[in-house]
Amino acid sequence: MSIEYTHVCLLGLGLQASSIAHALRRAGFEGRVTGSDLSAEVRATADRIGLCEVTETNTAAAKGADLVILCTPVGAMAEVAAEISDTLSPGATVTDVGSVKATIIEPIVGVLPENVHFIPGHPIAGTEQSGPEAGFASLFDDRWCLLTPVEGTDPQALDRLKGFWEALGARIDLMDPVHHDLVLAVTSHAPHLIAYTMVGVADDLKRVTETEVVNYSAAGFRDFTRIAASDPVMWRDVFLSNKVATLEILGRFTEELFALQRAIRIGDGDHLHEYFTRTRAIRRGIIDAGQDTAAPDFGRIHEAAPAQTKATEGES
Amino acid sequence: MSIEYTHVCLLGLGLQASSIAHALRRAGFEGRVTGSDLSAEVRATADRIGLCEVTETNTAAAKGADLVILCTPVGAMAEVAAEISDTLSPGATVTDVGSVKATIIEPIVGVLPENVHFIPGHPIAGTEQSGPEAGFASLFDDRWCLLTPVEGTDPQALDRLKGFWEALGARIDLMDPVHHDLVLAVTSHAPHLIAYTMVGVADDLKRVTETEVVNYSAAGFRDFTRIAASDPVMWRDVFLSNKVATLEILGRFTEELFALQRAIRIGDGDHLHEYFTRTRAIRRGIIDAGQDTAAPDFGRIHEAAPAQTKATEGES
Repeated sequence: MSIEYTHVCLLGLGLQASSIAHALRRAGFEGRVTGSDLSAEVRATADRIGLCEVTETNTAAAKGADLVILCTPVGAMAEVAAEISDTLSPGATVTDVGSVKATIIEPIVGVLPENVHFIPGHPIAGTEQSGPEAGFASLFDDRWCLLTPVEGTDPQALDRLKGFWEALGARIDLMDPVHHDLVLAVTSHAPHLIAYTMVGVADDLKRVTETEVVNYSAAGFRDFTRIAASDPVMWRDVFLSNKVATLEILGRFTEELFALQRAIRIGDGDHLHEYFTRTRAIRRGIIDAGQDTAAPDFGRIHEAAPAQTKATEGES
Repeated sequence: MSIEYTHVCLLGLGLQASSIAHALRRAGFEGRVTGSDLSAEVRATADRIGLCEVTETNTAAAKGADLVILCTPVGAMAEVAAEISDTLSPGATVTDVGSVKATIIEPIVGVLPENVHFIPGHPIAGTEQSGPEAGFASLFDDRWCLLTPVEGTDPQALDRLKGFWEALGARIDLMDPVHHDLVLAVTSHAPHLIAYTMVGVADDLKRVTETEVVNYSAAGFRDFTRIAASDPVMWRDVFLSNKVATLEILGRFTEELFALQRAIRIGDGDHLHEYFTRTRAIRRGIIDAGQDTAAPDFGRIHEAAPAQTKATEGES
């Protein structure tokens, strides 16, 4: 649970990097935290809010660090790794927070020197917000951080990285990179593409106005708009990097959707009822595992309520 | 904004009816509130928590009421209307809270006596929870209640019903029933079917375990499980009653999804990026219209946080 690094470098100052910076502060980390970003505007913002020591270049930020965390969109990671390659201290650990693992490992390993430890990682935590001001210290609390170490990874370097994430509030699991990408295609990539699609359809309809979509979104649609508001560059890269698994899951999804559409068309109420009953149980599992709130409506605050008279059990 | 009824009858004591009962209490309503439900267990629960005067039968609850609200699944509404038909007081208003309008109006009008006012309605508000204990007083606050009056509706009866919903916190809009069903297919019915499908796919995969789905659900999937935990009977009835519009929107959805799948397959990053940028704007509209919270992650409480160090603007 202790942080055995003295200088943490964050490259790409978005939601993940800024949350790491806040969580480090909360954990009482007394070492250096440096960071940089491709965007001058992002660097200026990070500097203004005192997120970390902001440098002009990635190499300046990485110099002397014993932990470098790649926090850029996955499509830019190999390039950033190549850029800092000559600067890295011998024995340093390089990790990342990318949502895709299998396809990014080889290009990164290919450009890093042999005397650093590259341990791919992915904290399963985020919000729809992005940028250096979106971070907060509790983002990783009770969330899982998946590490997908490559063959021959130094056990001590792995233990140090585990301790780092645990100190930030996360739980650790190890996983094979290809399996990681299939699991994430189910729990993240396919749901995001589906949400983007549904919001795009609503936005594009001629017979239903945007005002109608917006005003009556509380009927379910608004749940989709949250993840469809996520960072476009990050998600473009995710889909292009996890093509095979995402397309496999989307194939299963459309197959199942067609079966349900057919049940609606032929009026097979039993099929629908059976399906809808089965899907109820999985939410209970997620709540019991501490991965979502049990409060109705995600605990969205019903702000306008002047005096809430709430039923006891329905709200728990 | 005042309630010009003296006796409100709620038939079907689920989330909607129980929220109406709580909201009536909050509004200082001093008349009678009666209610019944097909299920003896539901009636017993409603009675135990003092929701309203609970009667054994629908006819006993409807006797003497000047406002009767059908709160059952839409598939049962015509039957309930037929059952209470002989009991209804002349001049009483009958309304409903069903998510589908066009196909339910004729069967209900067909069984009601001519001396009552039937004004179909639909408050666009709900949570994934159901039953008499799920209700709360602020459910309708700032949500829209759509009324779809049939030709020849008495303007005074309509005004009285508007005043009722406004007193419960809702805003009113009038809409043609067929258009209502198309709008709701977009903002509610298609999203629900899609969420049910995605959760069903995840539940059914052999290569990804349920524990993996549950543990890593914070990556987006958990947002889908909320609406896929909604009442199975209610939703079976919605899809069977709004077949045409739902299938139309699902057709548009799969068309668009296929286009995005193709963009992933051929590596068309520009198409993906452009699409994901466009869908971002609609969430802003929903937040500005007061139909969702601006807090990241729906304001889900990060409970485990011992000391939150939050960035200022990212959290607002």
